[in-house]
Amino acid sequence: MGPTPRAEVDDERRSTRKRAAILQAATTVFLRNGYLGSSMDEIAGLAEVSKQTVYKHFVDKERLFVEIVTSAVNEVSDRVYEEVLDLPDSGDPESDLRDLARRQLARVMQPQLLELRRLVIAEASRFPELGRTFYERGPGRTIAALARAFERLAAHGVLRLEDPALAAAQFNWLIMSAPINQAMFLGRDGIPTRADLNRHADAGVRAFLAAYHSDPPDE
Amino acid sequence: MGPTPRAEVDDERRSTRKRAAILQAATTVFLRNGYLGSSMDEIAGLAEVSKQTVYKHFVDKERLFVEIVTSAVNEVSDRVYEEVLDLPDSGDPESDLRDLARRQLARVMQPQLLELRRLVIAEASRFPELGRTFYERGPGRTIAALARAFERLAAHGVLRLEDPALAAAQFNWLIMSAPINQAMFLGRDGIPTRADLNRHADAGVRAFLAAYHSDPPDE
Repeated sequence: MGPTPRAEVDDERRSTRKRAAILQAATTVFLRNGYLGSSMDEIAGLAEVSKQTVYKHFVDKERLFVEIVTSAVNEVSDRVYEEVLDLPDSGDPESDLRDLARRQLARVMQPQLLELRRLVIAEASRFPELGRTFYERGPGRTIAALARAFERLAAHGVLRLEDPALAAAQFNWLIMSAPINQAMFLGRDGIPTRADLNRHADAGVRAFLAAYHSDPPDE
Repeated sequence: MGPTPRAEVDDERRSTRKRAAILQAATTVFLRNGYLGSSMDEIAGLAEVSKQTVYKHFVDKERLFVEIVTSAVNEVSDRVYEEVLDLPDSGDPESDLRDLARRQLARVMQPQLLELRRLVIAEASRFPELGRTFYERGPGRTIAALARAFERLAAHGVLRLEDPALAAAQFNWLIMSAPINQAMFLGRDGIPTRADLNRHADAGVRAFLAAYHSDPPDE
């Protein structure tokens, strides 16, 4: 095949740009008005494209909604996942796990992601598949990766655990629960400062290691 | 003052019955249609009272919504609170905490309460005060009571902890988080069976005691 003609490349770039503009506008509109209160007209207007262009890219409002949620979840989830798989075994598990926990908590506590989480929970009965996707791509995937990382640490004699999946879920929720719940109920005012999030992550790691570290602390 | 006349007693009973019927109908309607999709007409119809009666008891839709949420939260919270304060110190902390954790988890995982929780999260930006009330009367109050109970167990030498409020929050979320999150995202299908909830509560208690029990397990 010969080189792609210049005009085709330009078309494709324009299309990619429009798609990104629609996704960004849709996120803004859905978060402001909820699912039922949002219209394709408003999204097209904010993205500065025609309504036909929105429909060409995303078929209908439902598909557009699913797309903005899954792409936001996947973006965060991909990074969290890689960081878990890259968890080092430096000989100082408290420091290794603390770094991981702080980074993960900071990612999950991004205000826009929290608002999408609230919207998915709100719409879980209208969109059960979307709720399932958020859950599986989000906490579900992280916990599965943590389980493998902890299994490796147990094989190295760093952790002592019988059920890696259980320990992984406990680690995840020790770090994530309190701040996420606060944010769900209290909104933006409920998001702790970065310093408070770090302290919370550190405390979760300490409790986790007190339960699962192979070297018992001095009595 | 003489005895209350018969007619007045009857009036009061009728009024109490109507109030209860309105609250029950409002819960059904709000959970089915969400806040914006619910009307006082529909609630009055389901409660078999006039719309004037609904307004006489609850002033407006907003106040009626706040009332059904706070009364449901308070009803569960009062029992959870008393059970925490009554936490025994039988000499078998694992058994004592397991009983408490199982009972609390079963209360919090009632389907209707979970749906109200979802509705409050959905409406947290429209009703920030309601989100705050749910949070403070729900997890906030339980955690504060747990902190006092754990402080007492630490004074008896059963637990070893420096920060009772932190340990209480960790206990609460070790027990509650995973099942509540599952239910928030997966709806009724996401509610584990009672047997699974019990196993989950037991595992949370084991991790908590591995971290905070004064007697370290045999190595």
